[in-house]
Parts: sequence; structure tokens; C-alpha cells
Amino acid sequence: MSTTTQSATTDVPRGLAGVVVAETTVSDVRGNEGFYQYRDHSAIELAASATFEDAWQLLVTGETATPASRGAFGARIAAAQGLSGDIDAVVDAVTSATPSVLAGLAAAWPLLGARRGIRPLYDLDDEQRLDDAIAFGASTPVLVGALWRRGRGEAVLPALEGRGVVANYLHQVTGREPDEETERALTAYLIAVMDHGFNASTFTARVIASTGADSAACLVGALGALTGPLHGGAPSRALDGLDAVATADRVEPWIRGELAAGRRLMGFGHAVYRTADPRAELMKRVALRTGGPRVELAVRFQEAAERLLAEAKPGRDLHANVEFWAALVMEQCGLPRSMFTPTFAVARTIGWTAHILEQSRDPKIIRPSARYVGPQVRVAA
Amino acid sequence: MSTTTQSATTDVPRGLAGVVVAETTVSDVRGNEGFYQYRDHSAIELAASATFEDAWQLLVTGETATPASRGAFGARIAAAQGLSGDIDAVVDAVTSATPSVLAGLAAAWPLLGARRGIRPLYDLDDEQRLDDAIAFGASTPVLVGALWRRGRGEAVLPALEGRGVVANYLHQVTGREPDEETERALTAYLIAVMDHGFNASTFTARVIASTGADSAACLVGALGALTGPLHGGAPSRALDGLDAVATADRVEPWIRGELAAGRRLMGFGHAVYRTADPRAELMKRVALRTGGPRVELAVRFQEAAERLLAEAKPGRDLHANVEFWAALVMEQCGLPRSMFTPTFAVARTIGWTAHILEQSRDPKIIRPSARYVGPQVRVAA
Repeated sequence: MSTTTQSATTDVPRGLAGVVVAETTVSDVRGNEGFYQYRDHSAIELAASATFEDAWQLLVTGETATPASRGAFGARIAAAQGLSGDIDAVVDAVTSATPSVLAGLAAAWPLLGARRGIRPLYDLDDEQRLDDAIAFGASTPVLVGALWRRGRGEAVLPALEGRGVVANYLHQVTGREPDEETERALTAYLIAVMDHGFNASTFTARVIASTGADSAACLVGALGALTGPLHGGAPSRALDGLDAVATADRVEPWIRGELAAGRRLMGFGHAVYRTADPRAELMKRVALRTGGPRVELAVRFQEAAERLLAEAKPGRDLHANVEFWAALVMEQCGLPRSMFTPTFAVARTIGWTAHILEQSRDPKIIRPSARYVGPQVRVAA
Repeated sequence: MSTTTQSATTDVPRGLAGVVVAETTVSDVRGNEGFYQYRDHSAIELAASATFEDAWQLLVTGETATPASRGAFGARIAAAQGLSGDIDAVVDAVTSATPSVLAGLAAAWPLLGARRGIRPLYDLDDEQRLDDAIAFGASTPVLVGALWRRGRGEAVLPALEGRGVVANYLHQVTGREPDEETERALTAYLIAVMDHGFNASTFTARVIASTGADSAACLVGALGALTGPLHGGAPSRALDGLDAVATADRVEPWIRGELAAGRRLMGFGHAVYRTADPRAELMKRVALRTGGPRVELAVRFQEAAERLLAEAKPGRDLHANVEFWAALVMEQCGLPRSMFTPTFAVARTIGWTAHILEQSRDPKIIRPSARYVGPQVRVAA
């Protein structure tokens, strides 16, 4: 046996499951307790009550927003948003090649970085890295909104003065100035999914950051991982069941049919939570606030699915996950389904930038090893 | 203490050094022996004698090229190269936003994927994944050459009929039809760096592939990691020393000055090799074949650097690495320095696609854990 390094090697569980690869102060997920936190705050409490900007400030700087600190952070956001000429040029370029918002975002980040003379994290100090983090956090909702409109051949709408990131994002995507309830509902979703431990996309961002590459390079890699079907980055699939049943009397037969056919029920079960997913519970409360027949159907669907899953897969503790109820909330907010994953990316970009900042303070590259199990070559003597 | 998963956790060395995260049959690096292999072939022997296309076929399919199999693989390359309308459109779009070839390549891959209706690895079978692998391997040198020319406001040159990938790439970048010696020299470099174990960029590609995302997403992440200063993806820096000394009598004083100032000598030392880097030795032989005063200076520089490093850092065994001699070879081939890293990326794309194929056969997502070491929040009872 030989391996790709010469030093002593360690074998670990497949997929690095349970392998502690770093220490972090960004967030913590306690899967057994149905609880997660951003820095020293309950993430669910933040999602239920904070502004997007305050949660962003907390995650990226570690600082709880106060009237004083909020002003300084807001000024940094405004400065980043002022660089909109580059965004226009990049959106023009990208939408000339594709109307896909996700591919467009992946292309837009490195182009924006190049136009702004972005430098490797390795060459920057903490303050300069924070500038980049805030610039990408601020640019991303603007980019995504503009890619959506321009990809459909529509003009980008002017910013709503005096309103925050979330209201402006909703305005751009739906074409309507959002009321406060809608803004609050989407804010709850975005904060709830800003970060969530060392999932594959966050880990990808950190591996790239460990090489000292620039922030755009880290974000593009993370976005790539987010788009993977196994990552859970496609909340729109959670609506497939609701669409298929259409009426309450068809819920139970349809679910039974899916389980009998051995198909996975989208929107149920999670890698980390064994209890109910606290994000799903929050999103359900948000959806119930607006209510309507679709939400009533979803309540029935969840009840039947959890009961039938417990029968079919005893001991697995499969509950509705965040995707199920988040999809309902995004639907209520007027977001088209093709914008569910880009909207998730807008939120998660905040968490990624926080992890990129943390990783960039560690000078050690992440470079694991592998065991070569193919045929050997005789080395010439 | 809590962690981001609820299961038992394992602590491992920082940066995953020596941690076996997967089994592979793509390549093996024996750092203590100064030897590495692609599948069941010595990589150095391939670099010294194989064509780019044969080494590509071996790495990606695991199949040694024979007159019969070579034809089938060549037909797949030709089919992929025939889709050049998309490449033109993407290059037009990207170069309207930036002349940077590296940022342009990062942007071009997802745009090309979107235009071609690329699908997640998760939804494809092995043959379809191989089609994507070959399509990106074939498109990348064409994209990089076109991005270079168009980024400088020049027209893309027509393909050289009857010549392979390397001759065409050299033609596009240098503007000259290359002679056989130049083609052979660059081929040796490209094959020698096509793959090299589980470095950070390859690992990044595999983490993204483990989510089931599409090949473009995996490649973009890998390229991001490659651009990191700690990855070793910047061979042009290895020429800094040669540029600074200019004449042979200044070699030793300059190196002494750098070491006394505590600066790292670029182009010397490697994370894995404790012996001489076999890639450096091959590149040196290639450079000596053409020769010239610059190569003579490089020989003097290497001799002095290794002697003075042994004095200054006894026991560290610091030798010229691949970047040092590869930079000389690329210079001899007429490549401008800004194209050294993109040229490295053209080669490494082959290895990345081989690893993406291998990873995509494993259904387990790579999702490690972290230890939260920040302040705790009290969970509401």
C-alpha cells in the first residue's frame, strides 16, 4: 500500500462524517437538541425578529448590532452598493450568454472580482478581507435580482430608497414593492438559512480559502456545491408532493404510493436534525400567519407524511425539513420557483463570507490524503 | 462542548494532513521515493514520451491508449471540439467584462454548461459523465486560447488541421505555428502536471462532485483553489529570482540576502517530495535540450539555492520544485508569464475531470464537522 503523502496516515469515516476539521466561532448546530446558533445568538430568535442587515453584521463581524455599530456597518454596505457600474457591466455580459440565474451568478462573481482588482486573501489583512466579504454580501442580492430581470429581457428596477436589502430584492424579483408582512416573511427565511455548520458548500468555501485564493474563488466553489442535489439546495423540489396531490383526499394515497415505490419524499428528513428541524417549525409559523388553502394542504401533507414515514421507516425520525416549509414561504412571497435556489444562495453567501474570513486567519492549507488502490508500476531501479 | 453533528466525532491533524479521505485509482504520489504514477503508468515516462491525448485518455478512462481505443477517444474529443459556436458566444460575453484569462475561464465554464444544458452528475450515468469530462477537457484549451486572444482585442486563429491539442494551444497563445520540439516540450510539462494526488484543488473538485452538482460547478471550484498562493499554482513567481539576479555573479549574494531577510525562495521545496521533485528533474532535462544563457543561469541558481538552503535550513531537504523548471520551459515555449497559471489549469483540468468521475460513483456526500468554540447561548426551556 502507498498513499499520496509520505507521513503517517489516519483513516476516517467516509464522507468525513463526524470528523472535526476545524474550530469555529461562526455557528453551531446541535442536531440532537433541535437548536442552532449564530455566534452567541439563537438563530431562530434572530430569524423571527432581527433585520437581515443585523444578522449579517453579527455573522460576518461577530458583533451584535447596536445603534452605533449598525451605522458603521450600514455605511460599508452602502459603499459596496455604490459600485453598481461594475454590476451593470457584468450582468450585461453574463445575460448575453445565458438567462440562467445560477450559472449567471457563478460567472458574475469572478468577473466582478476581476473588474474590481480583487486580491488573494493571502495578500490581504483582516480589514481588507472584511471589505471583500461585505462587498460580495451586498452585491449578491443586487446581482441575482438583475440577472433575473435581464435574463427575461426586462429592465432592472431602480432601488427603493429607504428600504433594506430584502425589500429591494423582493421588488426586483416580483416587480412589486413588497408590504411589510412579505418583507418580514422572506427576512425570516433568509436569516434562518444564512448559515448551518460545516455543510459541503461551507466546507468547499473553506478549502478554497485555505489556499489563500480570493473571495470570489471561494464563493464560486461554495455555490457549485450548493447546487448539488445531495446538498439540499433545491427547495422547489419540496413542492412536488403538494403539486401532485392537489387536494386533501389524495394526500395519503399519494404518499403511500411514493413510499411503496421506494422513492424518497422530498422535504422530509435531514442529515443533522433527529428532532424536528427548528427552521421548518419557524417557516411553518411564518406560512400559517398568511394562511390560505395551499398552507392548509401543506399542514395535512406534513401530518400524513410524518405518520406514514414513521410506519414505513421506524426509528428514523423523519420530520419535515426546512425545504418543505421554506418553499411555501417563498411561494407566498411571490418568488417564482426557479428563484428558490438563487434566493437560498443570497442568504448562504453571508454564512460563506463569515467562514471565509475565519478560515483565512489559519495559515494551514487543507490538503488531505488518499489511498491508492489501483495497480502498481514497478519503479525503475 | 458541542459540535455541528450529533454523532461521535473524530479529531484529525490540522489541514487534514495525512488523513485518508478516499480511495483512488487515478494517481499515486510516493513522496519518499520521488515517484508518481497515473493509473498503472509512471507519470514521468508518460510526460517524456506520450501524446497529450493519450495521457488524457489514460487518466480519464483508465484505459491505455491503443490504436483501436485511441480512435474512439479521439472521436469523442472531435465531437466536443465541434461545439465551438457556444465557445465563441461565451468568449464574446466574458471578454466584454474582463481581459483576465483566469477570471474569464472561471466565468466561461458555468456559462458554457448552461448553454449546453449541462445536468447534475447525480442525474447522469457513467457514460454521460464521461461525455461531460471529455467536453470540458477539450473545451478548456480552446477557451483559454480564445480568452487570451480576445482579451487583447485580437481575433481567434483558425485551428491547425491535423495537429493535436498542444500544437493548437501554442498556436493560439503565441500566434506562431509551433515546431515539433516546442510542442514536445510543452506536452511534457502538461502531462507532468495533469494530476498530483489529493491536493487542495482536486479535493475541492471532489467535495463539490460529492454533492451531485454538475461538472462545471466542480471545475470552477477546483480552479478557484488552484489560484491560491499556497496551492502552488503560480509558476511565474519562480522566475522572480532569475529576474532579480540577471547575471551569474549575483546569484549567491542575492539568495543569501533573501534567506537573511527571512523570505521564502520561490520555486524551492514541496509539501510532499522530500527527495528531488521528479517533475522538476524532467522539466530541467527538457529545458537543457534547448539550452541558452537563461537556462545556464537557472542551473547556477538551482545549485546555489540548494546549497545555501541546506546550510540555512539543515534537515529540510529543500530542492527545486516543478515550478522552477516548468517556468523556464514555458518561457522557452514562448508563453507569456500571465499565461503560466492558465496553462497549468489546462493540464490540471484533465486530472480534475478524472477525479470528478471517480467521486461521482460514490453516493456519499463529503460533509465534515467542526468544533464550536465560541460563546454559548442558553436554550429556552
